[in-house]
Amino acid sequence: MIRYPNGKQYVPSQTKPATAKTKNEKSFSNRGMTLEDDLNETNQYYLEKQIAVIHKKPTPVQIVQVDYPRRSAAVIKEAYFKQSSTTDYNGIYRGKYIDFEAKETQNKTSFPLKNFHAHQIEHMRQVVDHGGICFVIISAFNEVYLLKAEQLFYFWERCENNGRKSIRKDELDQSACLIKLGYSPRIDYIKAIDSLYFS
Amino acid sequence: MIRYPNGKQYVPSQTKPATAKTKNEKSFSNRGMTLEDDLNETNQYYLEKQIAVIHKKPTPVQIVQVDYPRRSAAVIKEAYFKQSSTTDYNGIYRGKYIDFEAKETQNKTSFPLKNFHAHQIEHMRQVVDHGGICFVIISAFNEVYLLKAEQLFYFWERCENNGRKSIRKDELDQSACLIKLGYSPRIDYIKAIDSLYFS
Repeated sequence: MIRYPNGKQYVPSQTKPATAKTKNEKSFSNRGMTLEDDLNETNQYYLEKQIAVIHKKPTPVQIVQVDYPRRSAAVIKEAYFKQSSTTDYNGIYRGKYIDFEAKETQNKTSFPLKNFHAHQIEHMRQVVDHGGICFVIISAFNEVYLLKAEQLFYFWERCENNGRKSIRKDELDQSACLIKLGYSPRIDYIKAIDSLYFS
Repeated sequence: MIRYPNGKQYVPSQTKPATAKTKNEKSFSNRGMTLEDDLNETNQYYLEKQIAVIHKKPTPVQIVQVDYPRRSAAVIKEAYFKQSSTTDYNGIYRGKYIDFEAKETQNKTSFPLKNFHAHQIEHMRQVVDHGGICFVIISAFNEVYLLKAEQLFYFWERCENNGRKSIRKDELDQSACLIKLGYSPRIDYIKAIDSLYFS
């Protein structure tokens, strides 16, 4: 049982941040694991095996009030979750800049584009313009897909031009690369990167 | 005057996170600006001018308790600052992965290596091993220096081998590249990257 400097006990269920993670736990592969957990484990595997250096960025938080109790660590007493202006994951692989976002849906027939906000798409465009490797890992329809940012832009623009607001399953099957789930690493997306960007 | 959803007022002086930033304000160039402020402004300039895509990572926070008031945003009621296992800044420039940390000292004669922790040095080694461009921006002695990670490793190992625990001013003058301070961008470190890595 974890106890914090103030002696309080860490109670995960009530205290989880209000991120996709909480939602994921119900859905992702029904293994009680979240997509984020699996990607973190995978990135740790890549790091230890010296395959790639890719980390999840911390959750952006707007800090409003901090207390500085004597003889103990600073305590954040009031803060709010902020929307990220970039993607969640970045790093380096084979000397190239890697940048991606991970999303999932419970939908059975399509992936809703409302999972992204304009800032993230704009960031992905900038990364692609500067020669980076940019993509989305999508957990949907009991599969995990790697969709290149360039493909995502096509569906995003179709939506902006009053087209459909989601990517149909058959469209994803055609335009994305399936990632095989394993034990370790759990989501071996580097294989997909190799075939999509290095071959 | 900023007011948050709860109507509370944002009072920067008491509420700044307990990072280097608070310290910096007393010292950095005596312009009331922090090194972090100037680097954020510089990165924003690079982004708008489409020169590079480099962002500061959010401050890592261990969230302990979150309230979910009805009809309003989730409020983090208890959280603690976490030590980062990576560096603060990364991104892409001229197709290459960029990764750096920014530090400053009030010391007059040397830069103390205790400004870094082993995790950060280890991360920098991994970045260099994978072909990334990795360095430290050091604000010291009324100058701003760009020191290549490879040079920092030398001083770090000297310290680990019971050598001195800091980098002397004359050593920094010899091994680092001076960054000229300007109005916009304020800290034009890309010029130093060009001369150190692309020429």
